[in-house]
Amino acid sequence: MATELRIDELMKTALEVEGMLSLAAGFTDNAVMPRTAVRDIVNELLADDSNNAILQYGVPEGRPRLREMIAEHVNRLEVECGASPDAAGADRMVITNGSQQALFMAIEALCSPGDVVLVEAPTYFVFLDLLRTLGVEAVSLPSIDDSLDVEALPAFFEELKRNGTLERVRATYIVSYFSNPSALSLSTKQKDGLLVQLEKYLPASTLIEDIAYREFYFEKAWPAPTTLSSGTTLRRVVTGTCTKNFSTGLKLGYAIVTDDALLRRILDLKRCHDFGTSHFVQAIVERAFERGDYARFLKHFRPIYGAKNASLDAALVEHGLKDLGWSWQSSHGSLYIWARAPGGITTGPDSALYRACLDEAVLYVPGALCYAGGGDDRVRLSFGALQADRLPEAAARFCRAARSAAAQIDA
Amino acid sequence: MATELRIDELMKTALEVEGMLSLAAGFTDNAVMPRTAVRDIVNELLADDSNNAILQYGVPEGRPRLREMIAEHVNRLEVECGASPDAAGADRMVITNGSQQALFMAIEALCSPGDVVLVEAPTYFVFLDLLRTLGVEAVSLPSIDDSLDVEALPAFFEELKRNGTLERVRATYIVSYFSNPSALSLSTKQKDGLLVQLEKYLPASTLIEDIAYREFYFEKAWPAPTTLSSGTTLRRVVTGTCTKNFSTGLKLGYAIVTDDALLRRILDLKRCHDFGTSHFVQAIVERAFERGDYARFLKHFRPIYGAKNASLDAALVEHGLKDLGWSWQSSHGSLYIWARAPGGITTGPDSALYRACLDEAVLYVPGALCYAGGGDDRVRLSFGALQADRLPEAAARFCRAARSAAAQIDA
Repeated sequence: MATELRIDELMKTALEVEGMLSLAAGFTDNAVMPRTAVRDIVNELLADDSNNAILQYGVPEGRPRLREMIAEHVNRLEVECGASPDAAGADRMVITNGSQQALFMAIEALCSPGDVVLVEAPTYFVFLDLLRTLGVEAVSLPSIDDSLDVEALPAFFEELKRNGTLERVRATYIVSYFSNPSALSLSTKQKDGLLVQLEKYLPASTLIEDIAYREFYFEKAWPAPTTLSSGTTLRRVVTGTCTKNFSTGLKLGYAIVTDDALLRRILDLKRCHDFGTSHFVQAIVERAFERGDYARFLKHFRPIYGAKNASLDAALVEHGLKDLGWSWQSSHGSLYIWARAPGGITTGPDSALYRACLDEAVLYVPGALCYAGGGDDRVRLSFGALQADRLPEAAARFCRAARSAAAQIDA
Repeated sequence: MATELRIDELMKTALEVEGMLSLAAGFTDNAVMPRTAVRDIVNELLADDSNNAILQYGVPEGRPRLREMIAEHVNRLEVECGASPDAAGADRMVITNGSQQALFMAIEALCSPGDVVLVEAPTYFVFLDLLRTLGVEAVSLPSIDDSLDVEALPAFFEELKRNGTLERVRATYIVSYFSNPSALSLSTKQKDGLLVQLEKYLPASTLIEDIAYREFYFEKAWPAPTTLSSGTTLRRVVTGTCTKNFSTGLKLGYAIVTDDALLRRILDLKRCHDFGTSHFVQAIVERAFERGDYARFLKHFRPIYGAKNASLDAALVEHGLKDLGWSWQSSHGSLYIWARAPGGITTGPDSALYRACLDEAVLYVPGALCYAGGGDDRVRLSFGALQADRLPEAAARFCRAARSAAAQIDA
């Protein structure tokens, strides 16, 4: 069963095979880290005893100045999308251990085992893992061209109503910018169309908008504001990260919560989870915002990932993947190329393709991991972790495996 | 209701009162931080690009070398207590965001709402908060002199059996070294006595042993090994910290889990919580072990906290608290003096004592927070966060408030 493939086992496989080139890991590139910025910040903060408090506990919700700076930053991005400058407030924010903890606490706060969360098809596979671990059922929203199909929503919700699922739905999860895995973004029209239907069918539910890759674009920001800037009456949790596109391993994210009771519940959970994210890490990220390191580093790294994406994309074409009937849309952000296999080719861990890739020592994420159901003909290929000069070889291996899988179908 | 006093509100009160001296916070002392060690480690690690992987994600269970070093360290402590050197294994360990996250995940893995966890009386109040937040009921084990009453256990368990509670018990939680709040430790006889009864009455349950303050002693380690070194058939989770007594705000702890299925479940949760504790923080702590900074810092800080404890203890005596009928046992470790008020004096947030303390601008933790029920006549006084030269004044204020509360009883 493809859905039983565990992420941790996938990672172990990658480590055990000699010379494996991983197009699977959603890691960033070790060669592209703000090493000197982090080192300089620590030296500055720990030059004398005046900042010793950063080596001490903080408050569970996170450093006030950091929350202010993130709120200002998010509001600036909203303004650049034509929205008003007061979408995010420091007092509605919880600092978390990466955006992952924000997602976990949102679901923990909202759902009990047996409840339902609506997700996109495809969606972020660690989020599906999280739902499964908490006993929550994922149900896919309708899709067209790997993105939300707004036209199909009324019939979809009517069907949920008819089959009794609607009353079990607590939340809807969208990855709205350069999504993991599809690299696609949601338009304002798509988000508004979804909100209208949610207000109608699920007015007491919560929209969780994951904006982790919002700033992880190569050339141009995606022009749609977040749902924080919409006029909806729906409760919203917007989750983001400050470190995925900075120093990934520092692991600092946030949740912005529009509803008082839900914010309180998430703060209760944060206090009980860990009494606050590492205060030292918070202080480093805060200083990176203040010194401008964060903005500077983003400018530095965008063209690098743009080039890596272009390199992998071109190598896949060069080695004949499109000739074999595979298709994908160009990525303009994120770490991923999301590709569809031609008819008859499946991609799960029992497939000919997967075995051929292990033989070739190249790894990908099977598409089914990214769906509540289906997706057996997709792969997520990441150009994040692999060094730039290894990408053409990884593409060559993947294409040889694809050719071998196609031959087995034909045989 | 004392039990409704929220920890976060207590903290806010402390910040809002002008000139407040807090004997409440369980923080360490900002003047006693391994600032230069942390700075030097970061400079060493980030001197060139060779360690850039520490700015990248790691594996969810934590850095292999760090887990090895912690296992070796715990085993060394076990040997010093006369136990064998193989109690802890790196492969049975999960690195967590402080020991708090280890506790949270253990309960999340073991309990559903309505389940019961047995706790000491008194016990760690954030753990009680955690149980409440997850809808789990806490039931107090029998106590004598603020520590586990082993003699009373058979009757206690018979009563649990009779009243139907026994079948709802999933776990037992003990704080076995220099406990928060009592500063008392459990003897091997007490632990073995508990294990015998648990094996008899609750063989399918789990013992959670919190060793957070094991190394936080002033002069002498507590001589009992952990239950990892016991011959029990019971499943155990031992939770500890590497940063409470080093650089508190780095926030790195661990769980050691004896049972395969439970370890797997906790790893599932860790992956979904945050996909691993900040890799950068892990690398710093690992290097602190390797360089010997951890051991060096412990030697430095033990006499400092010993002196702070002695200072607060002496000042409380000097200002007449014992003459007022208050009593407490000497602390030999931890950050706390756990004191009992004379008959008639209560300590909750509605009490005359609490109000008098707010008037005097001194703060304590009301004892009831540390009990599943009762404890209205206790206070936890911490000498951790307050600067050493402020402790006598804080003691004077507390004693004046105690005198005022006594006068109101007499009136």
